Amino acid sequence: MSHVKVYSPATVANLVCGFDVLGMALNEPFDIMTIRLIDEPTVVIHNEDDFDLPTDPSRNVAGVALLAMIEKLDNKMGFDICIEKRIKPGSGIGSSAASAAGAVVAANQLLEIRFSAIELVQMAMNGEKLASGVKHADNIAPCIYGGLTLIRSIHPLDIVELNPLPLYVTIVHPQIEVKTSDARQILKKQILLKDAIRQWGNIAGLVAGLMKSDYDLIGRSLEDVIIEPIRSILIPAFDEVKSKCREAGALGGGISGSGPSIFMLSRDAETAGEVELVMKEVYNRVGIDFNTYVTTVNKVGVKIVKEK
Amino acid sequence: MSHVKVYSPATVANLVCGFDVLGMALNEPFDIMTIRLIDEPTVVIHNEDDFDLPTDPSRNVAGVALLAMIEKLDNKMGFDICIEKRIKPGSGIGSSAASAAGAVVAANQLLEIRFSAIELVQMAMNGEKLASGVKHADNIAPCIYGGLTLIRSIHPLDIVELNPLPLYVTIVHPQIEVKTSDARQILKKQILLKDAIRQWGNIAGLVAGLMKSDYDLIGRSLEDVIIEPIRSILIPAFDEVKSKCREAGALGGGISGSGPSIFMLSRDAETAGEVELVMKEVYNRVGIDFNTYVTTVNKVGVKIVKEK
Repeated sequence: MSHVKVYSPATVANLVCGFDVLGMALNEPFDIMTIRLIDEPTVVIHNEDDFDLPTDPSRNVAGVALLAMIEKLDNKMGFDICIEKRIKPGSGIGSSAASAAGAVVAANQLLEIRFSAIELVQMAMNGEKLASGVKHADNIAPCIYGGLTLIRSIHPLDIVELNPLPLYVTIVHPQIEVKTSDARQILKKQILLKDAIRQWGNIAGLVAGLMKSDYDLIGRSLEDVIIEPIRSILIPAFDEVKSKCREAGALGGGISGSGPSIFMLSRDAETAGEVELVMKEVYNRVGIDFNTYVTTVNKVGVKIVKEK
Repeated sequence: MSHVKVYSPATVANLVCGFDVLGMALNEPFDIMTIRLIDEPTVVIHNEDDFDLPTDPSRNVAGVALLAMIEKLDNKMGFDICIEKRIKPGSGIGSSAASAAGAVVAANQLLEIRFSAIELVQMAMNGEKLASGVKHADNIAPCIYGGLTLIRSIHPLDIVELNPLPLYVTIVHPQIEVKTSDARQILKKQILLKDAIRQWGNIAGLVAGLMKSDYDLIGRSLEDVIIEPIRSILIPAFDEVKSKCREAGALGGGISGSGPSIFMLSRDAETAGEVELVMKEVYNRVGIDFNTYVTTVNKVGVKIVKEK
């Protein structure tokens, strides 16, 4: 095999009540990456987009993920990778995870599946460490496994695949900057036990709703009394978008990852489209540039589209 | 119908990582209650056991639950109830919940099902308020619904039934006193966000494990980093019992409700029996009197055994 091409999807981390433990892969948008083996134990990066990301592998999220793999290969070979980013960095829908996860899945395919999915997650988490300072897996895991994933534990890493029922996802990305590291900094280190109890009731309800295909229960459980009240302050018109999307029929939703994107789940395509109209109406009126996506849950994760 | 007789089961609240939100009904032990209608809007209580519980209905958990029902009946009738408690008060396996839930389920049967299950939970919660000062539902809900239940939210009350897979339960009740109100008082009002994240990863894992019939995942998820480290100090030999039961093959377990009982889950009857031997060995050596039970998950809750 001389090269492998993949589509690496956007992901929504946290899913409202599952801060740091839940994530979901989307069918759109996705990055496109083509990788080939080289004889040197290094990573050569070609950016085929306008984001001007670093090409020094030690400063590039795909680069550090691949360097972690090269170490496991006893430094005998390396990778040349072309990256066309379509997921805007800083949008809150797992742009860095798509780079890191896509790179290691593509490289693993080139190596005829030398590493397990969980090993790939661990390598790709180095990219998240570079991007946000924290080795979190709530975007990486759904990007690699597809569907909805639970990171039950980081130490040791324990990933649980949750069967995704048909769900439509509407995303709006208001074009403001919210750095993951800043969004993490403003959180309180201590929380009220009573709030934590409410939160674990909700995450248990969300998981039960997903497994029982109970859309109403999913909707009732999409409540975050801990993170959202703090982080939503950074996102203009957040409360209005959320309440109007619910009125338009969305099951619920909230901040995607650390924002600024907002996601909403719907039971059908028609509602997801109406939710998009609501989002457009609000941000047009507020006067902030934005992108929207109407998509579905991606059940496969990073997709191999070509190999030869 | 002149009278109704019920068996009202013991329950395990919290289930390690689900403090205040999860509960499970057991097939043994259970209280036996017989109820009949009377013309006065009051409750007459006959105790048929040696626990010397109050017969004044306003000071008896079954009494206050029935008084709450009488209010809904516009004070036109009342109940005469005989209670044979077999679940020792203060054991931590839902003795007060069995009294309150059994009474209202029996009374509702007498009234030819005038109230819904959720209304019965609400009435019975008055008993918990009397017993512990808090209107919690994590024993009441499984006692009435059977199986495993999630209290997603108390305000508004939202109860989710989790399909119970076959599970064997071993209980040891060391005969020391732990008051629910004291066990609640020693908890910290604030907890670390990082501990809360670990806890909601575990409760999500436990619910996923139950729904996927993944026993290993259930076992890995039975971890409590918030409540158990504080409350277990009140229970002699807790850590030893827990680690030795795991060594004997238990999936995991912990404090039942606010203690002092300890419960362990096992995949089969043989392991549950071996776990019982371990519990007996420890408390015999420590020199504390105890009871043990080896039982299974009760799928029906309060059971009508006779009506005529």
